[in-house]
Amino acid sequence: MKPFKGERVFTPGPVEIPDRIREVLGRQIIHHRTPEFTEAFLETRELFKRLVDCDSENFVFFSSSGTGAMEACVLNFFEEGDKVIAVVGGKFGERWAELGKHWRLKVIEHHVDWGKSVNPEDIEKLLKENPDCKGILIQMSESSTGAYHDVRAIAELTKDRDTLLVVDAITALGVYDMKPHSWGLDVVVGGSQKAFMLTPGLSMLWFSEKAKDKLTGRAYYFNVGNELKKQVEGQTAWTPAISLILALREALRILLETGMEGVENRYRTISRGMAKASESLGLRLLPENPSISLTTLLPPEGLSADEIRKAMLSEGVRVAGGQGKLKGKIFRISHMGMDVNDMVVALSVLERVLRAKGLKKESGVEAFLEEVSR
Amino acid sequence: MKPFKGERVFTPGPVEIPDRIREVLGRQIIHHRTPEFTEAFLETRELFKRLVDCDSENFVFFSSSGTGAMEACVLNFFEEGDKVIAVVGGKFGERWAELGKHWRLKVIEHHVDWGKSVNPEDIEKLLKENPDCKGILIQMSESSTGAYHDVRAIAELTKDRDTLLVVDAITALGVYDMKPHSWGLDVVVGGSQKAFMLTPGLSMLWFSEKAKDKLTGRAYYFNVGNELKKQVEGQTAWTPAISLILALREALRILLETGMEGVENRYRTISRGMAKASESLGLRLLPENPSISLTTLLPPEGLSADEIRKAMLSEGVRVAGGQGKLKGKIFRISHMGMDVNDMVVALSVLERVLRAKGLKKESGVEAFLEEVSR
Repeated sequence: MKPFKGERVFTPGPVEIPDRIREVLGRQIIHHRTPEFTEAFLETRELFKRLVDCDSENFVFFSSSGTGAMEACVLNFFEEGDKVIAVVGGKFGERWAELGKHWRLKVIEHHVDWGKSVNPEDIEKLLKENPDCKGILIQMSESSTGAYHDVRAIAELTKDRDTLLVVDAITALGVYDMKPHSWGLDVVVGGSQKAFMLTPGLSMLWFSEKAKDKLTGRAYYFNVGNELKKQVEGQTAWTPAISLILALREALRILLETGMEGVENRYRTISRGMAKASESLGLRLLPENPSISLTTLLPPEGLSADEIRKAMLSEGVRVAGGQGKLKGKIFRISHMGMDVNDMVVALSVLERVLRAKGLKKESGVEAFLEEVSR
Repeated sequence: MKPFKGERVFTPGPVEIPDRIREVLGRQIIHHRTPEFTEAFLETRELFKRLVDCDSENFVFFSSSGTGAMEACVLNFFEEGDKVIAVVGGKFGERWAELGKHWRLKVIEHHVDWGKSVNPEDIEKLLKENPDCKGILIQMSESSTGAYHDVRAIAELTKDRDTLLVVDAITALGVYDMKPHSWGLDVVVGGSQKAFMLTPGLSMLWFSEKAKDKLTGRAYYFNVGNELKKQVEGQTAWTPAISLILALREALRILLETGMEGVENRYRTISRGMAKASESLGLRLLPENPSISLTTLLPPEGLSADEIRKAMLSEGVRVAGGQGKLKGKIFRISHMGMDVNDMVVALSVLERVLRAKGLKKESGVEAFLEEVSR
């Protein structure tokens, strides 16, 4: 039966767009080389500073997907031949390694089982073995597996070394109450279609003073130095994704109305609830230490992940499958942009699907409601 | 007096967005790794083939501004050390030269006075002097001056040589009835916020078989070969600007409902009318051979270009100024996305501004109406 009200999107990007943001995205265009745009852009930048709890102007926005900003990291903060460690524990870790090799860095791939989180002690050992290591490329939330990597612990290792900690936080920024400056992160990348609840096409790149000192001139379109000079004045080097900048302002207002501590708490609560619910339903989480942005589940015996996804979709809830070597083996339910009421919908559909297959154990919805009410 | 209905945008990008397209841009998101997106994307590709009147699948879309696609041209079709001619007759010609040098091509800058069009005989001479020239980088419509460069005449010179003709058609595609295949162009670049009447953030790159044979692996985010493999199957290498793809489909439908011959005719009529009107108003066109995408005017004695712009804006019509060395010296009225009725509004405001300054000669609106009625 086709869902009466169409499909709801519980994928770890893109995520559902709130009406307040859709209204901005559908507006008539304004020109970008105007005081009106500059004012809006500078306000957006002020709000972004509050988001990352840091007064520094060291951040730029690019008109690109998140991968573009990842490329910008490799091109702007490293020279050819620089040695870097790439933490590879999923599809996005693989992208770091690939990008590093493409632009001729010496990449040490530190492999972590998919679903596991990196052990900071392993990184410490690698850094001792490689005192000339210029950077660590890592995900904070590896959304292909749902694993959380403890970038704060790793920052303790890099902060007194000549090593930049470059964090793909594409599915972490706007979810966690990130404080990159006080944590000691050097570069942080975000993307519009994740917890910012926008359409894809805008990426964010924040960086430390330590990273700023390394800026190269290797990039053209993705040149951080050129963009920074323009963007602190409320302009951009190239034509910006005007509508996405205006919509980002609205998204930041939404996030900051709650405050990032509250936002993170909401996601923590949801994440805990989803873990309890999964247990009750007899499902196992893939990650040991999950990111609070999504719940990554293994299917039960007798039913494939893709059968579950298909059955959930036919009841109006789209969840994601696995990527790369996890293709067909897991399913992923995003929390981004969602609240407890939304998650009840996704969970109840999952419960109905399992029930219909005779595989439901205890009630997932009940366990979820109990946990989130504590 | 603040205009009652707000401002209208007559700038050569961004241009006004029709309601049909705004409705698409404001829609709830759909996921891109779905049959629904693939179907929409493949339909968009079919419509794009009709736009360029060529069955070839050799084209890709990038989530970036037009400059990103220009960078893609330099990275994907040329190797380090390749010799190219860059036609520099305005700000965008300068960008070609800068991009070529950035990525270590040997760039021969062929300078043309700003506002003049390149003489194909000069290019023929340069090609004879440089038989190892691998490419020509040129604008079809140099929107910083309003000049048209006769890329069809230059294609006659390159088609039997091992030289790629790379055309920035960012303000020409969707305006002219371009037939890159039969004209013998090798690479054509377009941008969403110009005659496609979308928000900025999507660029287009069409290429010939001759160009395809040259594809390098130098780019990562802007890798044409990787994108092509995915895009012919209705997918993308990186997360696409989903809303802009869906909106591009709508824009192509709008353009093809008229047909590109009709669209070009409309712009030709407007351009002719604007030239007559300017003459009647006592204003001089900057370009000798104007692009039909915009009208570029010199201010009359006794009034600066920026004073005219400011006065027009206060009557609700935003027009563009000069860029680079033409800053403050010209004003530019875009035709893109506009029809005769729209242009009457822009022109009548210009006429009112000149009248108020005691500088109006004959009626511009009358001359325009007479010309477009012929």
